Amino acid sequence: MKRKFKAGVCQMLVAGQKDDNLAKARSMIREAAANGSEIVVLPEMFNCPYNSRLFPQYAESFPAGKTFKMLSEAAAAEGIYLVGGSLPERENGNIFNTSFVFGPQGEFLAKHQKIHLFDVDLPDGLSFHESKTLARGKVITVVKTAVANLGVAICYDIRFPELSRLMVLMGADVIVLPASFNMNTGPAHWELLLRTRAVDNQVFVIGAATARDTSASYVSYGNSAIVGPWGDIIARADEKETIIYADIDPGEIDKIREALPLLKHRRTDIYHIKSQQ
Amino acid sequence: MKRKFKAGVCQMLVAGQKDDNLAKARSMIREAAANGSEIVVLPEMFNCPYNSRLFPQYAESFPAGKTFKMLSEAAAAEGIYLVGGSLPERENGNIFNTSFVFGPQGEFLAKHQKIHLFDVDLPDGLSFHESKTLARGKVITVVKTAVANLGVAICYDIRFPELSRLMVLMGADVIVLPASFNMNTGPAHWELLLRTRAVDNQVFVIGAATARDTSASYVSYGNSAIVGPWGDIIARADEKETIIYADIDPGEIDKIREALPLLKHRRTDIYHIKSQQ
Repeated sequence: MKRKFKAGVCQMLVAGQKDDNLAKARSMIREAAANGSEIVVLPEMFNCPYNSRLFPQYAESFPAGKTFKMLSEAAAAEGIYLVGGSLPERENGNIFNTSFVFGPQGEFLAKHQKIHLFDVDLPDGLSFHESKTLARGKVITVVKTAVANLGVAICYDIRFPELSRLMVLMGADVIVLPASFNMNTGPAHWELLLRTRAVDNQVFVIGAATARDTSASYVSYGNSAIVGPWGDIIARADEKETIIYADIDPGEIDKIREALPLLKHRRTDIYHIKSQQ
Repeated sequence: MKRKFKAGVCQMLVAGQKDDNLAKARSMIREAAANGSEIVVLPEMFNCPYNSRLFPQYAESFPAGKTFKMLSEAAAAEGIYLVGGSLPERENGNIFNTSFVFGPQGEFLAKHQKIHLFDVDLPDGLSFHESKTLARGKVITVVKTAVANLGVAICYDIRFPELSRLMVLMGADVIVLPASFNMNTGPAHWELLLRTRAVDNQVFVIGAATARDTSASYVSYGNSAIVGPWGDIIARADEKETIIYADIDPGEIDKIREALPLLKHRRTDIYHIKSQQ
């Protein structure tokens, strides 16, 4: 089933202490829900500073970890779908950058382990290597909810058009992207990528970024945004801590696909894209 | 072999008479070459108004048609690579929207028959159905030249990320796109699409549009642009008839792919894209 709903994106400022982050996230989720959000989204690594060295230290195993307990409790208490940003997840001796999704009864619905790890050496000197401490996810994630199907990806995952296309071919109406672009790639590519994945696939895209902390070792670009299936930005934050909202009507997707039938016009006799799963 | 070169894009105003269009194209090619362009690009349907009904009437068979003769002669006389926009091509009883590429000796190098036909009914009332008179191409086109490998696509082809990705996996350094977006999709998506295909694939993209004629049945958006592999617009036209130029250094591609190794980071164990050819 699909119907109109309000989405809320919590662009939170991540602090050094995990407990402070959990308290801040809990309070922003409460506010987003009080303002009518049926789906609430947190940013990437919301419980931990974005620093490869710290991921093992902040990592938790599901379901025992306190971050999971907070997320599940918050989803149930507010009666919302909660895309819990991402956090370092310990599983079978590995650590993943993982997004957990909970339903309105606090039930675990799905998780997405970041598929594409951010290993870069940018010309301005920014160097980051997630693979130093993280393992790579292997599964494409589309979550059914009562309002829409959510394709969940994390940050760098959005750079690979194959993934967005496959999530949409698997039924995603909304691509939800907890993220943390930086001051180099953010101004250059963040908005472009959110808008193009929406336009190419004629879906909504929710980009949930961490707020900017200029004293951090990795400075987030912020600028969380919600994009419609024609590529229009329907809600957008600046760099500061805030919550943004948008009314999302999955019915718009059908109208746009009728006018400009991109998915129908794909030449699957000439190129073929498939999931290896 | 790859080396720096200058590209020139002739954003020409298409008139009603084919002979006028051939004369205008010839003169713009001469000017672009005189200004140092080693690759010159014309826009989509440069010899014919963009109107499905007219395509059969303006269509020519290769190599006898006068448009081909002009293109080959111009390439040889100027000693350039010429991506001859596109024109209605008659072949085996069908008509295609086809781009012909000629080399500096006037030799035929390759042709691209538009793969994705523009069949749309936009909300503002714009309706266009290329398939009323045109047949669909079946081949992905990458042309080797002495300066770079050119992936050739036409207009609506750019909306399909699979095609750009495959051209690049087949070795394209520059995506060359004769096109004619309109006043609805142009402002909404033209720049976005050119920039994203460049950013996703870390290649140059040359979008060559027809100039705007507000008295035409189909009003072109214009705004030809040349985009670098980081997504930066390095040359751009407005809506009027003009030639734009850019210096293109294929070496930039390697630098960007070293800093941000997108093609290397593709998860071909999770998704697989292949040409069916």
